[in-house]
Amino acid sequence: MIGPGRNLLVVTQGDPAGIGPELILRAWLHRREQALPAFAVLADPDHLGRVTRDLGWSIPISPVEPSKAIDTFDAALPIIPLSHAVSAEPGRPDPAYAASVIEAIETAVRLVHSGAASALVTNPIAKHVLYDAGFRHPGHTEFLAALAAAPGEAAPHPVMMLWSEALAVVPVTVHIPLGSVPSALTTELIVETGRIVARELRVRFGLSHPRLAVAGLNPHAGENGAIGTEDSTVIMPAIEILRQDGIEVAGPLPADTMFHARARSRYDAALAMYHDQALIPIKTIAFDEAVNVTLGLPFVRTSPDHGTAFDIAGKGIARPDSLMAAIKLAARLGAGRPAP
Amino acid sequence: MIGPGRNLLVVTQGDPAGIGPELILRAWLHRREQALPAFAVLADPDHLGRVTRDLGWSIPISPVEPSKAIDTFDAALPIIPLSHAVSAEPGRPDPAYAASVIEAIETAVRLVHSGAASALVTNPIAKHVLYDAGFRHPGHTEFLAALAAAPGEAAPHPVMMLWSEALAVVPVTVHIPLGSVPSALTTELIVETGRIVARELRVRFGLSHPRLAVAGLNPHAGENGAIGTEDSTVIMPAIEILRQDGIEVAGPLPADTMFHARARSRYDAALAMYHDQALIPIKTIAFDEAVNVTLGLPFVRTSPDHGTAFDIAGKGIARPDSLMAAIKLAARLGAGRPAP
Repeated sequence: MIGPGRNLLVVTQGDPAGIGPELILRAWLHRREQALPAFAVLADPDHLGRVTRDLGWSIPISPVEPSKAIDTFDAALPIIPLSHAVSAEPGRPDPAYAASVIEAIETAVRLVHSGAASALVTNPIAKHVLYDAGFRHPGHTEFLAALAAAPGEAAPHPVMMLWSEALAVVPVTVHIPLGSVPSALTTELIVETGRIVARELRVRFGLSHPRLAVAGLNPHAGENGAIGTEDSTVIMPAIEILRQDGIEVAGPLPADTMFHARARSRYDAALAMYHDQALIPIKTIAFDEAVNVTLGLPFVRTSPDHGTAFDIAGKGIARPDSLMAAIKLAARLGAGRPAP
Repeated sequence: MIGPGRNLLVVTQGDPAGIGPELILRAWLHRREQALPAFAVLADPDHLGRVTRDLGWSIPISPVEPSKAIDTFDAALPIIPLSHAVSAEPGRPDPAYAASVIEAIETAVRLVHSGAASALVTNPIAKHVLYDAGFRHPGHTEFLAALAAAPGEAAPHPVMMLWSEALAVVPVTVHIPLGSVPSALTTELIVETGRIVARELRVRFGLSHPRLAVAGLNPHAGENGAIGTEDSTVIMPAIEILRQDGIEVAGPLPADTMFHARARSRYDAALAMYHDQALIPIKTIAFDEAVNVTLGLPFVRTSPDHGTAFDIAGKGIARPDSLMAAIKLAARLGAGRPAP
């Protein structure tokens, strides 16, 4: 039996000077025709009320306890109030509100840990704003991983998946220069990533027999060594280890011919060796709908696949498609499934 | 005034043991509903007749002079006979027919040079078959470039474009290991490639004001140097030189967000820094229809974007979509336009 709190999603607004607040408001306005699951936002009610009025939108906002949020959702946007007041102007990042950004993330993790919420949807932060206020993590995801660790334990290894209905991709290496990819790519890293992806496809996505596709690094996956060696010396051994684990894995596949519609039907997730190899195909075919999912954490976390967009914040023109897709996916992944 | 020969396309069958011969036959069968322009194939009539009979297809084949090919095309597939007889079994590459493969390419170039044909469409060859017979060029395109050079002159710099109705991409570096890309990528190479692309978009594609988009090398185009330096030290200077030439160039653009439909509408061709950065997006969205166009030669040459496919040759199941798209594009690019 799942209590009502189990299916509540908590949403952080990310940087309050970015587009996060207005996207949450727009998503709530679309809640019925999009059949969105109930969510509550972690925010300062006064600040979010000002954002609403400045945009000229008519949205009732209701500060609530987490246990009351689901019943509130249809009539008003439920807010779980933060202790820090937020004073932010759209498009003007300011370290003065950094404490509230961090408090929202910490509170959200506490709510999913306690079972008061089933999953977490985060809006984008601006790292430099938090760094200026003393934040010491490399990024949003690493902060979540640190919060996920039990006291005295190492943080789990978070894995980024970009997901859409048409394609799910996981970059094995992420935000490093292209020239650093060959040395950063190891058999161990590919194996560890593949294991996490396969496990979460089973546990979170409910696929009893997940199928992975692994991209080659070089053109034509190296053409038997004629165009680079890593495909056979680094990637192929990782595939063999994953297969020994009982995971169905195809590859290394030539990256250019593995992402068209017929090819995509043969696997559930693709492991790409570097950032653009993963993000080019998904953003080419699902630019507005792609969702970022963090695998490897003890809870479900999704986020829209865009940044703070300070340049258009407060104008009411940012598209909520990716946030709404992130909310739907979080509900699907968090619905009553145990942590892995 | 353009004579009839000017609008004849010549098509080579590439490796006769591959899918080239059957694709040409299938394309001819589709000539009416696809509104294909007239083409003639360079082949051994006896061999192509055998291929036709073995497939059980009813296709009249007519050996003709080039000047009679256009009038023949509606009723029969025109063949310009080679002097070398071809003895090839589907799926069995054999250096014994290498001389006929080379003769076909040489004859095709002679026909476009003389004006007897307006453009050249080549089917895929298997380099190793030709190497075993003494061929000494790195590939098909380099051979064509060598044939294009006047006696005593250096071969022109051929540039590969992958073209479809939805997207045209040019990889600045091509068949090299990913780890070699940063050192192979120079400002000069990007400038030379960009100039050839801009010129051919004007002269061949008829765009009076071509717009180029140049991809960054690193994730997020380097994020102002935070993720690699080449975007600002190598690519940006090339863009500035191209702009000084009067060419409209955007970039360096983050490669993941430049290929979705709205982004593609802002440019006519994208310059990618390496093979998969160019080929992933076009093969993801136009897998069957993408055409290879060689820019920088004194004549128009297109080819289907696949290989010899020895594994399915002779079965009659290979799809002629890319060859038909290559034939249509060759006609469009070669129609009465002077060489650049």
